[in-house]
Amino acid sequence: MVRARSGERRAEILRATLEVIAERGYRGATLGSVAERVGLTQQGLLHYFPTKDALLVAVLAERDHWDTSGGPGRDGWRLELLDSLVEYNAMRPGIVQTFSALLGESVTDGHPAREFFTERYAQVRENMARVLRLEFGERLPGGLTPERAAPLLTAVMDGLQYQWLLDPSAVDMPAAFRDFLGLLYGTGRGGPE
Amino acid sequence: MVRARSGERRAEILRATLEVIAERGYRGATLGSVAERVGLTQQGLLHYFPTKDALLVAVLAERDHWDTSGGPGRDGWRLELLDSLVEYNAMRPGIVQTFSALLGESVTDGHPAREFFTERYAQVRENMARVLRLEFGERLPGGLTPERAAPLLTAVMDGLQYQWLLDPSAVDMPAAFRDFLGLLYGTGRGGPE
Repeated sequence: MVRARSGERRAEILRATLEVIAERGYRGATLGSVAERVGLTQQGLLHYFPTKDALLVAVLAERDHWDTSGGPGRDGWRLELLDSLVEYNAMRPGIVQTFSALLGESVTDGHPAREFFTERYAQVRENMARVLRLEFGERLPGGLTPERAAPLLTAVMDGLQYQWLLDPSAVDMPAAFRDFLGLLYGTGRGGPE
Repeated sequence: MVRARSGERRAEILRATLEVIAERGYRGATLGSVAERVGLTQQGLLHYFPTKDALLVAVLAERDHWDTSGGPGRDGWRLELLDSLVEYNAMRPGIVQTFSALLGESVTDGHPAREFFTERYAQVRENMARVLRLEFGERLPGGLTPERAAPLLTAVMDGLQYQWLLDPSAVDMPAAFRDFLGLLYGTGRGGPE
């Protein structure tokens, strides 16, 4: 019973953090502002998440969980959903900024989020390859195997996010991602200019 | 004369910073370690570069300058050189880590490197589009215009770097980049498995 309540409390904190991120971005999402939102002292918040990084990693893990549960059962992403996911991301710069900033930090030595991202990407590449195999079989129209296309698909999503965050007016992220899907399909089906 | 000497001193500091980055990575490249390497006090170093971020941005700008001067005159990158650039990057994780960490931080509000990266990407996309136009004319084999392919080319390079930095054994960065060039060429010329 105590454990259940603790789980609810954690979920409430994660929702509150996501709200604060949406409103104030990565830098504004301080432990103090999250604690205030859920009616805890900062000390009380630290009982659930010992550091800001731990809290943000939990939020990103939760986002991945939601984003990947739109597919059929445990299959994760479907290819047609990736398109919508990128469109959706273009409407929530706060969480994309948080993801991108933390990913950047995670590649430095000994960073607490490093393990999360390393495991996340192994998982994401595996999911992507499975999705591509379901769609195309052993060989994509552009000639690549699912395993070789998966890191590219992942890289394009992440890389476009940085360009878009830095200058949203210069990069139409969803359109650019559709262009890439067109290359994968080998059809230039990216649509009109 | 004083100005010339000051310019030499700055160049010397940038070279030393690059060495420290190569040896110790992003976190190890402290103002103290760079000052020691060039025989300055930390206070003396701050005369040339007022913050660690300012120093690192100057190093990245210098790297861009070198990387893009391999092409014919002022034309910047040539497409066949991009391949070699990615291979070269795979042998210098320190500077790639520094670039990736600083890019991550730069998307947060008010970060001192934000302007550098925003302008850099506008420039990089323009350079890429010019290179692609020289190579293919107004339409790439895969069907995209140079302007629409340029942000994808850039995104793949950046995105692959994150995956590679997190887990070098899981991602063959140069091979993955060649796979992407194969998609752009519309030929699946990525080579054998």
